Amino acid sequence: MKYQYIQHKSATPLAEKPALNLLQQDICLPAALLKQTAIQHNLQWMQRFAQASGVLLAPHGKTSMTPWLFQQQLAVGAWGITVATAYQAQVAAQAGAKRIILANQLVGVANMAIIAALLAGGTELFVCIDHADNANALAAFFATEQIVLPVLIELGVPGGRCGCRSNQQAVALAKHIAGLPALALAGIEFYEGVINTNDTEHSVRQFVQQAAALCKALLRLQLFKHTNLLISGAGSAWYDIVAAELSKATLPPTMQTVLRPGCYVSHDRGIYQQAQQLIEQRSALACKLGAGLHNALELAVYVQSLPEPGLAVLGFGKRDAAFDAGLPQAIAIYRNGQMLSDKLQDCQTTKLMDQHAFWRYSPALTPKIGDIVILGASHPCLTFDKWRTLWLTDNDYNLLQQVDTCF
Amino acid sequence: MKYQYIQHKSATPLAEKPALNLLQQDICLPAALLKQTAIQHNLQWMQRFAQASGVLLAPHGKTSMTPWLFQQQLAVGAWGITVATAYQAQVAAQAGAKRIILANQLVGVANMAIIAALLAGGTELFVCIDHADNANALAAFFATEQIVLPVLIELGVPGGRCGCRSNQQAVALAKHIAGLPALALAGIEFYEGVINTNDTEHSVRQFVQQAAALCKALLRLQLFKHTNLLISGAGSAWYDIVAAELSKATLPPTMQTVLRPGCYVSHDRGIYQQAQQLIEQRSALACKLGAGLHNALELAVYVQSLPEPGLAVLGFGKRDAAFDAGLPQAIAIYRNGQMLSDKLQDCQTTKLMDQHAFWRYSPALTPKIGDIVILGASHPCLTFDKWRTLWLTDNDYNLLQQVDTCF
Repeated sequence: MKYQYIQHKSATPLAEKPALNLLQQDICLPAALLKQTAIQHNLQWMQRFAQASGVLLAPHGKTSMTPWLFQQQLAVGAWGITVATAYQAQVAAQAGAKRIILANQLVGVANMAIIAALLAGGTELFVCIDHADNANALAAFFATEQIVLPVLIELGVPGGRCGCRSNQQAVALAKHIAGLPALALAGIEFYEGVINTNDTEHSVRQFVQQAAALCKALLRLQLFKHTNLLISGAGSAWYDIVAAELSKATLPPTMQTVLRPGCYVSHDRGIYQQAQQLIEQRSALACKLGAGLHNALELAVYVQSLPEPGLAVLGFGKRDAAFDAGLPQAIAIYRNGQMLSDKLQDCQTTKLMDQHAFWRYSPALTPKIGDIVILGASHPCLTFDKWRTLWLTDNDYNLLQQVDTCF
Repeated sequence: MKYQYIQHKSATPLAEKPALNLLQQDICLPAALLKQTAIQHNLQWMQRFAQASGVLLAPHGKTSMTPWLFQQQLAVGAWGITVATAYQAQVAAQAGAKRIILANQLVGVANMAIIAALLAGGTELFVCIDHADNANALAAFFATEQIVLPVLIELGVPGGRCGCRSNQQAVALAKHIAGLPALALAGIEFYEGVINTNDTEHSVRQFVQQAAALCKALLRLQLFKHTNLLISGAGSAWYDIVAAELSKATLPPTMQTVLRPGCYVSHDRGIYQQAQQLIEQRSALACKLGAGLHNALELAVYVQSLPEPGLAVLGFGKRDAAFDAGLPQAIAIYRNGQMLSDKLQDCQTTKLMDQHAFWRYSPALTPKIGDIVILGASHPCLTFDKWRTLWLTDNDYNLLQQVDTCF
């Protein structure tokens, strides 16, 4: 047998070669790739942004759920890792995160048990609360476990997702939490990414100011019960404004600002690329740091069928890539290891089925079955979760290592 | 430590109980469930339909990619398993399939190597071809491997996906294949599910008739070179018509009809439920078999937040369920192990984010945080691929076993 196999869909017949190269057909396609240079650039860029802004980073791990990326994020200076579920918190802790924000409500006995085990093991961990009923359920569980659970009150917006809808509600909840000895109020959490108004930027600024005012009110009322206080907001679209507004708010030094962007690490060629362009337009700091973020997440697929003039069926589909915020689009096409073209703006992916993509190519191009097309996608979270393993590559598509996801 | 953990997102703190029950909060939610009774019913129903129709079944494995389900399908009498990629073929073979249809073109050296290894290991395997270039590439690879590759010519439709666009094209390709000793033409494959016309049923019938006529032409020209000949079509929406039309075509007994429905095994509460209702309306046989197909794939999630009157945020999202053919909708809601209601027609899931769902509930309902909502979804393929493990349950949500997916 000339080949070895591994048990996931980027199954790899490892040719008997000292080094594998994607363009030499050494691995099965479709495959998902992380470009090493872009990943390292993005890691450094966001860490420099946070340092220059005087804020801490707890990158949202739900984007990639890739422990190797969590380790890279922590290695360049991230304060902790953010997650959305108890299971994700466990993965982050196993990857080495000492501080974890569960930026979500913790509900259900089995989920609470995971968090209790992590706290008992020494992880510094914070969960969000937006309702007295949930506070009571958590207090009952953690009292039995004889563990104090650090909690953040989630502030939301009317019409938004989770979270108290006003500072008044949040203060009432804080008072309720103060009566529950198993809970220790440690700060405020919010997510501005659900705001969508006629002037979203202005609404985001107002919301961050409201969160800062809530912090000050809770400090005044002495309702915080934890030693390390946090105020945490920001996805990948508004982190500049959250950092700027919280800086202006002059909170006491005992309260640290923690930002939670997630998608920056892989970046994308869609909605996050657009969001980052806006950030670079409005943020002098982002501008000064230069060279923005680079897309690191690519798909490599075969031209599988050429059934009609101008139409290629590519060998990937909804099984392999995000498709909810624009379809993956081609970046370059290769044949026999050589680039045919990276000017594919006139080509377009028009439809995805489960395992196939329809690609309308321009008359200037004459693709052949077996050509390799490299694509970029929009919304990296939903591409990551289609893969158990991604290939880390250099810019020449030499394959450096495999990195596993933990969904 | 009271709990054990396993490494995937339906991570299971296994309470120290002889039997686990989902409604008793014994496992982490969200979780994906397969209802044992419905699975067994669907397996039997489709097998009876195939037997009564005089056709063989090679259920499409790409739907579930769950070896346990492949084994169930084979155990009740499936002739083989259909797959969409070389990697999927490997999974099917490891699950015990002795006959596999790769209902797709085989492109790329590493993918070919997987298929070569399966053939060398004794698996009876067929791959699809729609282009002379692909035939040449396959012939070159398999000649070097000294293996003869059984191939099916894929017939497609203008405006459709892969496949020759006419019988004339297909015959020309068959003649080309006849000149390639490493390839053995073994039949015809088509997929009618891409047809969408003013009278789709009529167009599907015509297309199946065209495929049968192509078979007869190739038989007349003595272009088949394999001992076991196949004609294969049918997804989960038109299998009755494909079976009926191929029966009418009176092909010789050396040519077996193999249908490839995939979604029937879990069924759904959306597009496949609608397709099956149409089948039961038009097929006397489906009617006679009675009791149709039952949805077997459910999601169990927590009410996580109740931020505004009438709005619940449920603890699942695009990370956990298909959302491309209608959003998952609630079937029932439970509290403390007791059903609160299964009349939830006035409630509606209105939006999914990555990890959250917006659920507008009716004034008749007063959900609480921690209530468990059971949902059904549309398009099972894209729910399966969000999970590494699903829970097999009885109708009372006792947890019978975990079954792994292999994406």
